[in-house]
Amino acid sequence: MAHAMMEELMETCIYEARRERLRSLMRKRKIDALLVSYAANRFYLSGFELHDVQLNESAGRLIVTASGKDWLCTDSRYLETARRLWEPERIFIYQGEASERINELVKREMPGCIGFEARAVTLEFYEKFSPGLRLEQADGLVEELRAVKGEEEIAAIEAAVALNHALMKKAPDLLRPGRSESEAAWDIERFFRENGATELAFPSIVAVGPNAALPHHEPSQAKLPEECPVLVDVGCRCQRYCADQTRTFWVGERPEADFTRALERVKEAQKRAITALRPGLSSAEAYRVALRYFEVEGVAEFFTHSLGHGVGLETHEAPSLNPRSAALLAPGMVVTVEPGLYYPQWGGARWEYMVLITPDGARVL
Amino acid sequence: MAHAMMEELMETCIYEARRERLRSLMRKRKIDALLVSYAANRFYLSGFELHDVQLNESAGRLIVTASGKDWLCTDSRYLETARRLWEPERIFIYQGEASERINELVKREMPGCIGFEARAVTLEFYEKFSPGLRLEQADGLVEELRAVKGEEEIAAIEAAVALNHALMKKAPDLLRPGRSESEAAWDIERFFRENGATELAFPSIVAVGPNAALPHHEPSQAKLPEECPVLVDVGCRCQRYCADQTRTFWVGERPEADFTRALERVKEAQKRAITALRPGLSSAEAYRVALRYFEVEGVAEFFTHSLGHGVGLETHEAPSLNPRSAALLAPGMVVTVEPGLYYPQWGGARWEYMVLITPDGARVL
Repeated sequence: MAHAMMEELMETCIYEARRERLRSLMRKRKIDALLVSYAANRFYLSGFELHDVQLNESAGRLIVTASGKDWLCTDSRYLETARRLWEPERIFIYQGEASERINELVKREMPGCIGFEARAVTLEFYEKFSPGLRLEQADGLVEELRAVKGEEEIAAIEAAVALNHALMKKAPDLLRPGRSESEAAWDIERFFRENGATELAFPSIVAVGPNAALPHHEPSQAKLPEECPVLVDVGCRCQRYCADQTRTFWVGERPEADFTRALERVKEAQKRAITALRPGLSSAEAYRVALRYFEVEGVAEFFTHSLGHGVGLETHEAPSLNPRSAALLAPGMVVTVEPGLYYPQWGGARWEYMVLITPDGARVL
Repeated sequence: MAHAMMEELMETCIYEARRERLRSLMRKRKIDALLVSYAANRFYLSGFELHDVQLNESAGRLIVTASGKDWLCTDSRYLETARRLWEPERIFIYQGEASERINELVKREMPGCIGFEARAVTLEFYEKFSPGLRLEQADGLVEELRAVKGEEEIAAIEAAVALNHALMKKAPDLLRPGRSESEAAWDIERFFRENGATELAFPSIVAVGPNAALPHHEPSQAKLPEECPVLVDVGCRCQRYCADQTRTFWVGERPEADFTRALERVKEAQKRAITALRPGLSSAEAYRVALRYFEVEGVAEFFTHSLGHGVGLETHEAPSLNPRSAALLAPGMVVTVEPGLYYPQWGGARWEYMVLITPDGARVL
């Protein structure tokens, strides 16, 4: 069998196995069919289109059924792609209003309780899709599966992380005085793309001086001076999976004491949190390990965001390591650990690793 | 006054003028306040964040009120950005569930009928936002304004189109036998980004041979042979605005007769459609001008999509030139005209221009 064909077959098995796991969750909830609209969930279960082109243009929806007769619903533009992934007799090509056509399909083919994602359908879609159906909101089922990564997913994530590490090694060369934030950001993107990344996982952050205190800073024309802190938070996507890493560098030879102290504290908080990570620990408790250290140091007020988040097909996914999260860590989860301290006067420091939860602890990727 | 400050002030005036035009539309519909959730609409009216980072992560929402006291609602990550654009006393920073917090704000500050976009809120948001409010679905109001471009928008679109033209001039050099579709796509992206584009307007299509018959083909490892058709459908984004152009090239010296004939017909259909474009013409009729020519030629069955679409802050926006569209063309609209003929055996041909509707006809950009 040709290598490409074997690969395709293995992928088909992986998607099928994921849908089987979803069916177990559906049975517990007494859901007979689940309409999957959220793009990353759709891809996870079928291999069909990880992205929708525009917010208002869905590439299609999946219906996973308790009986195992699953449907891929899309429009004619995607017919060829669908045929490569799906049994032809259960590809449903709609014309006009997708919501109304899928309503008709479900009525005709699927009796019982229909689950759907209230977080991923618009009110307009819902109003046209719902008439005559017994519906139940079933958000988070696929996300629950996605939080625990399979071997093939961890391999893809490790490929992306390896490229991100290579970038961070090279970063000091790119961060030269006189270059602008956006020039450095483009150098970074080019490095990723010319070394195996299909795209960025998220818009790069390159933040000089006080800009480092803005969590969502967009790279600007601001130039790097001779001596300054620069926060670099970037990620590439390889084999569909995301990497996410932050480092804060000092450009020049004379790092200021405020910067050095903040960076040391951030790294110490990160170390303590990673040491604490293990299956069964709550996400909120992981956050509190870092917070408590900052409290002892008297700098907790400068730590303004969560400790981290899951990473996979999306840069931000379950679990979130924030003070309100009830999620328990489990082997196979991949999370970022990224404490930061921010000082609007001069900037700040953040340091981020990606960490795999293992049966007896955690391993930095 | 410094140049940068004057520019900022002018931009503020442009956004304010757009909100005034929206207020006229709101008055006709007896809407006292409009919650704007759709990212491109939000940006159009405020300059705040053209993109949401992930589908499930809104950067914020705008509330335009009949009284002129408009609110920008966002979370603390965007506070600094919001402050640069908005009066501080009407920036609303929410924590926790945005939907519930905005519900409280509206109840406290805005009596009357509240319009919202049913196409741009999820069912989950709606259920938490709606309690106790008098709501009315008001989709399309902002899109109606956006369809007719202002001078400053046409200037930005022309900048993007100029760069797209420069790329198409260079394209034959990039489409060399032995290069893969995805290598060519990366060359194209690099050309855009290194010559002034901030990003791609949409994922590039580079489709060799039979792949040209797939309307949503993703660039693959398929290599260009010595003689073949290649369809290139690419667009850059400059100053926030999109360009969108398609050409179909023959790589090599001996174009096949089927290709040449298809391309001639596509260009003739395009010419006839553009000649017909003028204010007052219906979008459906524009489509039919091209269709009728293909019918006379006996190839209508190979023309499988609409004739074109509006372009602006989004690659696909109003009006759509499809057989079911009731929209009338008006001066200031910018639309693509992109007939195509597709033959799964060998590929196909599409040719696309962007056209500005003028008071007495149309001008190719």
